Amino acid sequence: MAINYPNGMSSSNNGAKKQKKQGQSLAPKTNFANRGMNFEDDINQSNDYYRNRKTAIIHKKPTPVQIVKVDYPRRSAAVIKEAYFAQASTTDYNGVYNGYYLDFEAKETKNKTSFPLRNFHEHQISHMRECREQKGISFVLLWFSSLGRCFFLDSASLEQFWEHQSTGKKSIPLTEIEHLGIEIMPGLAPRIPYLKALDEYLKKEIQHNG
Amino acid sequence: MAINYPNGMSSSNNGAKKQKKQGQSLAPKTNFANRGMNFEDDINQSNDYYRNRKTAIIHKKPTPVQIVKVDYPRRSAAVIKEAYFAQASTTDYNGVYNGYYLDFEAKETKNKTSFPLRNFHEHQISHMRECREQKGISFVLLWFSSLGRCFFLDSASLEQFWEHQSTGKKSIPLTEIEHLGIEIMPGLAPRIPYLKALDEYLKKEIQHNG
Repeated sequence: MAINYPNGMSSSNNGAKKQKKQGQSLAPKTNFANRGMNFEDDINQSNDYYRNRKTAIIHKKPTPVQIVKVDYPRRSAAVIKEAYFAQASTTDYNGVYNGYYLDFEAKETKNKTSFPLRNFHEHQISHMRECREQKGISFVLLWFSSLGRCFFLDSASLEQFWEHQSTGKKSIPLTEIEHLGIEIMPGLAPRIPYLKALDEYLKKEIQHNG
Repeated sequence: MAINYPNGMSSSNNGAKKQKKQGQSLAPKTNFANRGMNFEDDINQSNDYYRNRKTAIIHKKPTPVQIVKVDYPRRSAAVIKEAYFAQASTTDYNGVYNGYYLDFEAKETKNKTSFPLRNFHEHQISHMRECREQKGISFVLLWFSSLGRCFFLDSASLEQFWEHQSTGKKSIPLTEIEHLGIEIMPGLAPRIPYLKALDEYLKKEIQHNG
């Protein structure tokens, strides 16, 4: 990989370093919460695994950066001297899996009973809706770091909760995620076998649509 | 759009400013070579057009940047003080069109009789092959700036020329592109109506595969 994404750069990653500490003090149920897991790294490792096995071609998009000033000390090594983190207009991950266009966002929380909707942004919700309208498969991967539990949730279900925020519900109860989503059991290779959940989802969709 | 891509940042764009001058001195055949056309801008405008009309959801990926040093003068405004342009591991554009995964690269040349293969990189060729293997549609959009002509070329055809480079053929003759590709007539909205060429390509593929 030519690109490194330094940890803690994106706002969604702020909790990554604290996670281990909390995991230790809280004596969580599984080993996964114990090992200072970085969810983003685990998704990237899973994507590498799937790519190497020719199962799917999924990449994380580069962090969007607005470049203001570049120095050219040598022709071969331009140095960016001033730049700012910009808001992405899409989700972090997309690609192709056996003819299916996949588009998703991976998010984590330290909460134990619900997933806060503030982890998402309006533009991500609309982008995932736009992808659905084009017959793509858009979804989110939700990681409960204190519980060591991971879920696949389709973007249409997510959007229903998103739209009900105005009624005061600012998070999705874990019980609802257990009901509407598909649990993913973390492993070693791939660490987050999300395509297994996706297959299950597709099977249900096909049954449901005739 | 929250993200700006400063012109001339990517190496493929170096010719953008010189283009107008050359276009004027060479008295090209069409108006398009005359107007200092920035091919990348035109593709982005076309993507916006398609997205607004709900025809397809295609985005340009952010320029990959390796971030080395970040200052946090205020919580809300992190400033990147040192960063480097990194090599992308994929193509520049991807997305979904009526259930099809699309993946492409857009390149331009000032040449008039052939398209130099040095415009492409090994990792782009392999990425496009990987996408084909997953039943995605990968292709390149080729812009002959001095001629004002644009072509759609599927990635499998491109790869054949790529593999024959060792025999000394370092570029694809325009005559071959005319034969194997599909010409795109630049317009106003969208400026590069590449989905029209794609539809034609898909039609041929369906006929060919029964």
